[in-house]
Formats: sequence, structure tokens, C-alpha cells
Amino acid sequence: MRRLGRVRPLLPLLALGLFLAHAALAAAGGAGAIDMLPVLEALALILVLARLGGALFERFRLPAVLGELAAGIVLGNLGLVGFHALDALKTLPTVEAFAQIGVLFLLFQVGLQSDVAKMAAVGLSATLVAVLGVIAPMLLGLGASEWFLKGHHVLAHWFVGATLAATSVGITARVLGDLGRAASVEGRIILGAAVIDDVLGLVVLAVVTGLIQAADGGLAFTAMGLAGVVGKAVCFLVLSVVVGRWLSKVTFRFAARLPGEGMLLSFALAFCFAVSFVAGKAGLAPIVGAFAAGLVLEDVHYEDLRARDPQRRELHRLLEPLAGFLVPVFFVLMGMGVDLSVFGNPDVLGFAAVLTVAAVLGKQACALGALGKGTDRLAVGLGMIPRGEVGLIFASIGRTLHIGGERVVDDVVYSAVVVMVAITTMVTPPLLVWRMRSGRAAPVAGSRDSSRSS
Amino acid sequence: MRRLGRVRPLLPLLALGLFLAHAALAAAGGAGAIDMLPVLEALALILVLARLGGALFERFRLPAVLGELAAGIVLGNLGLVGFHALDALKTLPTVEAFAQIGVLFLLFQVGLQSDVAKMAAVGLSATLVAVLGVIAPMLLGLGASEWFLKGHHVLAHWFVGATLAATSVGITARVLGDLGRAASVEGRIILGAAVIDDVLGLVVLAVVTGLIQAADGGLAFTAMGLAGVVGKAVCFLVLSVVVGRWLSKVTFRFAARLPGEGMLLSFALAFCFAVSFVAGKAGLAPIVGAFAAGLVLEDVHYEDLRARDPQRRELHRLLEPLAGFLVPVFFVLMGMGVDLSVFGNPDVLGFAAVLTVAAVLGKQACALGALGKGTDRLAVGLGMIPRGEVGLIFASIGRTLHIGGERVVDDVVYSAVVVMVAITTMVTPPLLVWRMRSGRAAPVAGSRDSSRSS
Repeated sequence: MRRLGRVRPLLPLLALGLFLAHAALAAAGGAGAIDMLPVLEALALILVLARLGGALFERFRLPAVLGELAAGIVLGNLGLVGFHALDALKTLPTVEAFAQIGVLFLLFQVGLQSDVAKMAAVGLSATLVAVLGVIAPMLLGLGASEWFLKGHHVLAHWFVGATLAATSVGITARVLGDLGRAASVEGRIILGAAVIDDVLGLVVLAVVTGLIQAADGGLAFTAMGLAGVVGKAVCFLVLSVVVGRWLSKVTFRFAARLPGEGMLLSFALAFCFAVSFVAGKAGLAPIVGAFAAGLVLEDVHYEDLRARDPQRRELHRLLEPLAGFLVPVFFVLMGMGVDLSVFGNPDVLGFAAVLTVAAVLGKQACALGALGKGTDRLAVGLGMIPRGEVGLIFASIGRTLHIGGERVVDDVVYSAVVVMVAITTMVTPPLLVWRMRSGRAAPVAGSRDSSRSS
Repeated sequence: MRRLGRVRPLLPLLALGLFLAHAALAAAGGAGAIDMLPVLEALALILVLARLGGALFERFRLPAVLGELAAGIVLGNLGLVGFHALDALKTLPTVEAFAQIGVLFLLFQVGLQSDVAKMAAVGLSATLVAVLGVIAPMLLGLGASEWFLKGHHVLAHWFVGATLAATSVGITARVLGDLGRAASVEGRIILGAAVIDDVLGLVVLAVVTGLIQAADGGLAFTAMGLAGVVGKAVCFLVLSVVVGRWLSKVTFRFAARLPGEGMLLSFALAFCFAVSFVAGKAGLAPIVGAFAAGLVLEDVHYEDLRARDPQRRELHRLLEPLAGFLVPVFFVLMGMGVDLSVFGNPDVLGFAAVLTVAAVLGKQACALGALGKGTDRLAVGLGMIPRGEVGLIFASIGRTLHIGGERVVDDVVYSAVVVMVAITTMVTPPLLVWRMRSGRAAPVAGSRDSSRSS
């Protein structure tokens, strides 16, 4: 403030200068550029609210991610109290894209903390956990649906069961990261199983969807179409595990010979985006690709590049600010997607409660699959609880399907799935925190990892 | 590769798992989510090409930004050699938004390296440089237009002059950053003057546009409308310099009392976005806001927050990876906007050559305004040469204006302006590098700054 006197020479000129700016830019409005102002407003709000929410929850020793979700729920439901000024924020595709890149960064970070060998070491456990974690909730969901929704077609019940199958790896990864436990045995089992049951869930969905479409006399369930899909998926597997590893080594060796700065981060990000793109092309979620990219990219590949950085920063240090910027955007947006008004419908609430119980108890069967002495089986079962975007995608597909003239997923079922996703997402962080903090295994020293930004 | 055997337990399951994924996600295509695959493809390509271009130019001791522009020009003009597979990349709004956020980060970084007092210290020089740098090119452009475009209305000539007024602060900032000279006296004069003449240019444009519309019997040029604009602009000035500084202090003091990590970066980014948003609302370019945000945000404001980081990283260190990711995206996209096919038209080339000479020589008048013993006046003049997006915006506004039944900016003028922008953007980095490396003032020790990523 004291120095303001020295700014004075600039002021009249700036004032004069600014004075017609608006007219000019208003005229330029049609010049084809995208309107960044709503995006800037949304990002500023989301960043501040995410941190405030996170800080509030940390005050109560709960993970920050829960606070970010809560901030999103508040932001997304201001309309319920008559405040509609921010409604436009919910539908900005640019902000949505930022969030999607954020969750890619999160899974890339998680992948970086592990490698193929470490994941393979828990491979059997993860596979068993995943299989049990798909079968048990599906059967419980099927039962819940048959009991609650009398008169629906049996395939519709199976469809409801399928929506309970897939664990949301994003939220699990984040909570483990917040606890510094992503690299523990339990952490690796959960992450490996979450990836596998993401895939298994999609298989189940595709089979049930195919059967429904065949039953409804629509599209045929052909072996040829499946063969093409299998081919693509196998290609992705080969690319990501075998070629990806070789490519990572070659790419970073090449980059190390280029002059200039910033090579490590740019090539690592390009690698992450490229593998995510290939995963998407193979029909998988891009986040599975980002995780695979992190998994095959090993420290030794970029040792030469890192040596050139004056501070010898590791890749995960460079990723921290990127994740710190974008990951909270993802979780706030996830919270914004929760529509609190469905909680007002008793039909929805009843079915949602049953579904949620099925979802939570079903995943506890996972505990049986976690092998190895000293593995905290309850922690694994709790870590598998959250359902996320995959469940919502399933439900939205169900709304487009019909069987015997009825929608497979009607409004009540859809809302109940949304509530189930919200509750499983919300209860997991505190449960997992409680179990991992009071559980047998103490956090690995020095393993506080980087899924949290700084 | 040797470890692949240990992955084997996962493979059959993953293969089985992936096998129907595509059908499922293909069905989910209509679920409302944005399609991230083209975005991922574009980002991966842009990041790699930016670094390859940058490395190639660094090999010849030229700044990386020039290589990024060149990479963009190649990527944007592949259609000329019959390769159209990547044409869709040019029009992805999400990538454009990433680029816009990138240039905000760049200007925010530049602003952080200075503060209000330091800018005010060169305020008189910067103001003189800006005024001369607007008047001289305008008069030369007016003359060039009268000489070359006989028969056009006199206001159309003035309009052409106006397109030469504004320096593109983005490219100047980047080159100074690449050279580690953003904080030198010359650097501060150039940056201050570039901001001021951005504003002056907009004033000139608004006046000329108003006169043209009045002459053509269209919209009236009212004093009332101007008063509203002045009010908004003054509000922005007060907010950014006085309130912004106070707000920055208060915000970071508040944030320092919140538990949790990542506060410094998130609040700084939110501050940057918020001030950019306010600048946009006041009718200025958001980048002016980002620069102002950096200017008023001083290290002492966040000292407490920084002390909590285990590595005590400064804000500019945290911003580095963000800028390293997004700034090259901006410059590659800028290069992609250059349409090489206009170089095939002799009419365009002739006028473009004349305009470019007017633009380059006109800005050399700036040298007269750079006061102070030991200031490298030629470096200031050279640093003011680049015209960028502002010139293009002016030209595109001119295409929408008519006077006496003729378009104020016809196809020849528009293409010539595009070429002028491209050439002034391209020649400045090498000229400035040559002058600053051979010039009197050696780089300030330890001032290698952070506009380059790592």
C-alpha cells in the first residue's frame, strides 16, 4: 500500500487505456475463440471450495477427498435452496475435460508407484479378490432386485446386479494415496483387483446387455463381433505390458539425448496420454491406460533425463503440482453429479438402502480372496466398496435398453443406483481410514506417496 | 521382459476381461460424457512435437519457443501435402482451452517475477515506450495502406494502422523467460509497455471501429456507453492493484491456517484464475489479469504456507510443471493457426511485406522512450516487435465492418495481417536472442527464471 504512490505514473494511462477495451472485445466476441470466462470462474471456485472442504474434513482426521466430494455436493445442489447462479458450472465441457485429465494423472501416479513385477506378485490375490468381488455383489444385487422389484424381467434383475460389480479405482487410489498406503500389500491387491474387476464388470455388462438385446429381438449377440473386440483388447494388453515397457525405455533414452529442458515431464505425459488413448481405442476406460502407463514406466528408464535436472526431481515430484491442480477438480465434479433431491423419494430410498447393503456386504466376500499371511483382509474388503462412474455408466446404459416394452432401468432404479454410488463412495474413506490406521500393518516408513499434491 | 513370466497369472484373466469391454463402452458412448480420445491423441502429439521442435532449435542456439511454433506450423499445414488425418486436431475446443490456460500460467509466472514497485520503477519508460510503440506503427501502417490500397476509405487505412499497434505480450514474455531476462530492466520495460500498449491498442481499435460504424450510419458512438466501460476498467485497476494485493495477503494468511497439503498451489491458481476472470469481465484480455495477479502476489504473502512444505518449494517451482505441460500447447496451437497457403498469393505477399516492414520499423521508435543510463534501447525496440493474437482479433473484427459498401478488411488485407503476425512472431526470438546475448548487460546472476519448465 505504501508503494502505491510509485504506481501513480501508470494509473492515468492505464485508466485511459482500459477505457474502451470492453467495446473492442465485445465486438471480438464472435471471433471464434472459446469463451474462457466461465471456465476461469468455475476453476477458481472449484479449487478454493475443494481445499476448504478438504481442510474441514482433515480437521476431523478424515481424508481430504471426502471434503472435496462434499464441496462438490454442496456446489451441485445449491439449486435446492433456490440459488441458481452457478448452475451453468455443472455443464462446462472444458471443466469436465480438465477433470478427466486429472483422474488420468491420479491413476498415472498410482501406476508409477508400482511396477509390473510388484503387481504380478499380488496377481493371484488380486484376481481372486476381483472375481469374488464381482460375483458376490452381483448375486446379492440380483436377489435384492427380485425381492424389491416384483414383476420385472429376470434379465432386468441381472442388469441391476451388474451395476454393483465394478469398484471405482479412482476413489480407492486416492484414499490409499492420502494414507500413504498405495504401495502396501493391501493397497496393491485392492488396486490390482479394482482394475481387473473394472474389466470383469464390463464383460458382465456386455453379456447381460447382449442377452437383453437378443431377448428383446434387437441386435444379435454375434460371435464375430466379440472376436473383433477380443482382438483389440489383446492388442492393448500386448502393447501396454510388452511394447509399452520397451517403448518407455526407448523413448526416454531418445529424449535424454535431446537438448533443452522439460523433456522428462513432457515425454512422460505424452506417454501417459498415448497409452490412455490406445486403451480407449481398445474399448477400455482411458484411466486403465493411464494406470498401465505408470506401471510400465520405471525409474531406470528416465535416470539420464533426471540427472539433467538441476534438482534431480523424480517424475512423481513433477507430477505433484499437476495432480494438485486437476485431481480435486475431478472429485468436486464427482460430488456435483450427486443430486440430493432423489433422497426425498421413499421408493428410491428403500431400494437404494437395499442396493447399498448388497454392494457393501457383497464386496466383503473379497476378503476371502486376499491370500498371504499378515494381509489385512478386512482392509481389502473395505477398500473394494466404492462404486463410481462405472456403476453410473452401467445405469445410464440400462436406461436406453428395453425388455418386454419396459425400460430395464427405470427412474426408481436409476436414482437408487445414483444413491448407492454416492453412499459407497462416501462411506469408504472413513471406513478405510479407520481400518488402516487401527489395523495391524503400520504405514510403511517413508512411503508417504504423492497422490496428494503439495 | 524377464519378469513377464510373473505377469502370466494375470494375462488370461485380463484377456478374458477385456474381451467384451468394447461392446460395453461403445454402448455407453451416448452416456453424455465428452469424448476424451481425440483430446488425448492431440495432447500426446502436441507435447512430443513441441519438445522435438524445441530441441531442434536449441541445437542451433535458438529459443525453444520458435521450435514449438515451427512444430505447430508443420502440424497445421500437413493438409498442403495431402495429409488430412490430423485436420480434426485444429478445432478441438478442449485443446484450445488447455492452451489458453497455458498462456495464463505463462503470464502469471512472469508477473510473479516482478512486483508493483519494480514495475512502477520503470513506469515512465514503459509508458513512453508503449505510446511511441502505438503511434509510430499506426502512422506507418496508415501510410503503407494509403500507398498500397488506393481507393479505400481513409478510415479503412486507419484501421489497418490500428492492427499494427499491439505487441503480443505472450511471445515476448516467453522469449525473455527462455533467456532468463524477464526481470532485467529491459525485460520489465518491454513487459510493462506490452501490457500498456495492449490496452492502448484496444482503445485505438474501439475509437476507429466507433468512427467507422458512425460513418457507415450504423451504431452510434455514445459517451454513455464509454462511461460504463471506463467505470468497469477503473474498477479492475483498483481491484487488481489495491484490493488484489490486500486480498492476496489475506487469502494466503487464511490458507496458512487450514490443515492439509496443496494449499499454496491451489490458492495461487484460484487467485490467478479469479483475477483473470475479473479482467475479462472488465473487457480486458484474461492474460492481463493473470499478469496482474502475479504482480500483486508477493513472496511474503505465502511465506507461512511455504514453510509447511517439506521441501519449502517456492510458488514458481510449483508452477513450473504446470507451465511445462501447457505453455508448449499454446505455442504449438499458435503455429497451427498459420496458414502457409497464403504465401502463394503475390498480392498478399507484397502488402504483407510492406506491413511487416511498417510493423518492425514502427516499433523501433520505442527505443526513444526507454529512459535510464545503460538501458539497451535496441533490445527494447526488438522486444516490442511481435504482434500476435491481438492483431488477428483486430483483423477479424475488421472483416465484420463495412464502410461505403466495402469491407474494411478484405481478404488481401486479412491474409497480409496474418502473414505480418507470423513473420513478426518468428523474427523476434532470434533478433532478441542475438541482441541480448551480445548486448551490454550480462544476464543477472541467478536470475534464470522459471518460464521454462523442467
